[in-house]
Amino acid sequence: MTNQPPDHLPVTAEPDVQVTDDILREHPERVAAVRDALEAGDVTRVRDVVLPLHYADLADLIEALGHDERMALLDTIRGELDPDVLPMLEDAVRDEVVEHLGPEEVAAALGEMDTDDAIEVVQTLDDEAREEVLDAVPADERAVLEEGLTYPEDSAGRLMQRELVSVPIAWDVGQTIDHLRAVAERDDEDLPDEFYDIYVVDDRSRLVGRVSLSRILRSKRSLALAELADTELRSVPVDMDQEEVALLFRQYGLASAPVVSAGNRLVGVITVDDIVDIIHEEAEEDILLLGGVSEGDLYEAAVDTAKSRFPWLAVNLATALLAANVIGLFEATIEKVVALAVLMPIVASMGGNAGTQTMTVAVRALASKELSVANGLRIFWKEGIVGGVNGLVFAVIMGLVAWAWFGDPSIGLVIAAAMTINLLVAGLAGVAIPLALDRSGVDPAVASPVFLTTLTDVVGFSAFLGLATIFVV
Amino acid sequence: MTNQPPDHLPVTAEPDVQVTDDILREHPERVAAVRDALEAGDVTRVRDVVLPLHYADLADLIEALGHDERMALLDTIRGELDPDVLPMLEDAVRDEVVEHLGPEEVAAALGEMDTDDAIEVVQTLDDEAREEVLDAVPADERAVLEEGLTYPEDSAGRLMQRELVSVPIAWDVGQTIDHLRAVAERDDEDLPDEFYDIYVVDDRSRLVGRVSLSRILRSKRSLALAELADTELRSVPVDMDQEEVALLFRQYGLASAPVVSAGNRLVGVITVDDIVDIIHEEAEEDILLLGGVSEGDLYEAAVDTAKSRFPWLAVNLATALLAANVIGLFEATIEKVVALAVLMPIVASMGGNAGTQTMTVAVRALASKELSVANGLRIFWKEGIVGGVNGLVFAVIMGLVAWAWFGDPSIGLVIAAAMTINLLVAGLAGVAIPLALDRSGVDPAVASPVFLTTLTDVVGFSAFLGLATIFVV
Repeated sequence: MTNQPPDHLPVTAEPDVQVTDDILREHPERVAAVRDALEAGDVTRVRDVVLPLHYADLADLIEALGHDERMALLDTIRGELDPDVLPMLEDAVRDEVVEHLGPEEVAAALGEMDTDDAIEVVQTLDDEAREEVLDAVPADERAVLEEGLTYPEDSAGRLMQRELVSVPIAWDVGQTIDHLRAVAERDDEDLPDEFYDIYVVDDRSRLVGRVSLSRILRSKRSLALAELADTELRSVPVDMDQEEVALLFRQYGLASAPVVSAGNRLVGVITVDDIVDIIHEEAEEDILLLGGVSEGDLYEAAVDTAKSRFPWLAVNLATALLAANVIGLFEATIEKVVALAVLMPIVASMGGNAGTQTMTVAVRALASKELSVANGLRIFWKEGIVGGVNGLVFAVIMGLVAWAWFGDPSIGLVIAAAMTINLLVAGLAGVAIPLALDRSGVDPAVASPVFLTTLTDVVGFSAFLGLATIFVV
Repeated sequence: MTNQPPDHLPVTAEPDVQVTDDILREHPERVAAVRDALEAGDVTRVRDVVLPLHYADLADLIEALGHDERMALLDTIRGELDPDVLPMLEDAVRDEVVEHLGPEEVAAALGEMDTDDAIEVVQTLDDEAREEVLDAVPADERAVLEEGLTYPEDSAGRLMQRELVSVPIAWDVGQTIDHLRAVAERDDEDLPDEFYDIYVVDDRSRLVGRVSLSRILRSKRSLALAELADTELRSVPVDMDQEEVALLFRQYGLASAPVVSAGNRLVGVITVDDIVDIIHEEAEEDILLLGGVSEGDLYEAAVDTAKSRFPWLAVNLATALLAANVIGLFEATIEKVVALAVLMPIVASMGGNAGTQTMTVAVRALASKELSVANGLRIFWKEGIVGGVNGLVFAVIMGLVAWAWFGDPSIGLVIAAAMTINLLVAGLAGVAIPLALDRSGVDPAVASPVFLTTLTDVVGFSAFLGLATIFVV
């Protein structure tokens, strides 16, 4: 199946291929090296490390430095910063860098980027900085950027690049190749830097098909595009949310997709490299939100991290106080049978864990559109059964353990009943809470864990202590 | 910046472009429709829905059905199943489908796939099924598959396809295009279905560069590849772990990457569509593991789901019993001051939440290689400070609340001290546990939550009840 060329001619170039085995591991060491060189004021050493870097690696490095080091680094490579670094930076870091570079240098950098990258940079600036930068951009480029900014945030319109190649459906392969060569000879900048597909349009600029470059290259010059074009292609409406665009790319293994406005007019193209970032960010965001943090804050100062984590802990304190209040209602019961205080956290903890299992599956199924109102009820009952079954199993185990431990069968029966109730509620709530939040437009990954653990704590403590008040004391 | 063709000629094809606004939302409805049609034995309706589907959508549909429905569906479309469905299926479902189709049909399907997809299908079969299928595959294809299986699981060698285009460095653009047209005319199957890059090799098959198709197409026929080729390309060693390959694609926005064996010999190519899946799966896996579930099990039978979730809950029960034992040590103290039973879950819960925040950041930073032994110690101390600072803040708040609630300043002081201790420990352990697990080769996402909450429960209960035994009672 491998296609080797028919013959191998003598070498005319020396191999200079970088094997990337340890590129990924170099990052922390590189940060330390640049930090040392900056501190020592060794400009040559800083430039030796920084200038050969790929723009993505340089962006990581800039992010990893503290504010003062970052500014010192920018001064060291003034005028030689690769423009492509800017779109790769985290928003807060980019704000600093843009302010330090000044509007003229930023505007010049925007001119060298594809529109999607330029919009990524411009859209996160605050209003004043954005106006200053846009004022410094030439009028025609500014019009493109301003049009891009009219599309909703996180929509396909913001993600797409305007640079694309489209040709009339009436052309053949030879005309297409000649056209590309002619454009490139006139001004190579008029073509996208890299592209995978050529789009085929009718005489009213409506998208009618797609031809991949590998199809063009293997076909005879005389073949008509109408015969070659893939007309069942998947296009993206310009206002589609980026999360759905990512699902589309993933589902159909796309390398790029055309973006169309009303009336199927071709307005741009989205490439997979932007989508890879979104897939990663969306999943990452859910992980962090479920863990109660708003952002990966590895490089932030300790006091900023402490501040950013405070609100979530404060919410948790409020719910813990609520649960404590529930326990407070049964002080008299606990005073008589202190074993209840020993056992009660078990019921709450098992409910919390069982609920978290269900909730995690539900939150991810909502994100990948596998869970919806259509099948929500079925999954709700299913999780109820799962919770009930595991509730009964652990009820038996825990009932016997409690009986043996405290020598009182009634304590065993009460903990068994409370366990069953709490795991059943946990299973149902694990589906119902994310689904309800999603329907009311709240991100289920943010709010589900609080609601869920509050519920399983309150139900766990009140079922166990309530039943004990009736049957044990 | 948009490159419109110079003129628009009359239309010769009718627009037939699918706007994909709601494709993503159709899934649950489609599952219900096929289920109904299968139940009613309406073969025509099943085929009408199923046969026009994209293979990725059909794979989703097959996964969503129950076992019997699945087999009925396969019988309905016997002989017309798109081979590309097989690599898209989850392992358990694929096993069923492969068994039902039989070795001959599966072997024929393998022949129509790219090697990476064929290996994906073959590698997950059990030994007996794999042998049967491989016996039915023609000898030359079998040799390629068997070689692929010698690479470690989850390595670049398993991900790569052998189908690629490589040409000698001494050629020019014209020779390259003529070569592609000649191969396609002889047998189009000898070229990969879609490709983005042509690799340039020396006379010993060593990789020396890469030319993107869009470069070839815009260049004059006489231009030498040696001048055109990008020789600073990033290649992937054949034994690199797939998670690192995914990081590489994401970092450098790659559409494809060449895979090389020892001595820089070009052996295959990895394309971004496979990487998109891996990025998603790796993040998904971490989310689910942190939530205590091994797999997204939305479509599984309730009893199977209950079984698969049992082990995690059993581990949690064991740790909850350990925490209960700690409480049990202080029964006498609680008997005297029942307020302690009311307040103690607050200390444990705050520790658990603060620790989970740190742990979530650490687990993700390990996955993206931002956290390592090199900077581990710095992050460890930083998280200690974060935990200590937030510990002190919440100590003051909770100390005052407890004093006001139970009118006893010594209870306030004790809960304040316990809170500070537990949040400090939680911050340190939130980094130390994932880092230690990672170093000892255990996936930190699996085991970190158990260790962490056990620790924060035990420290929380014993610090609070221990201090209370000394200072309150």
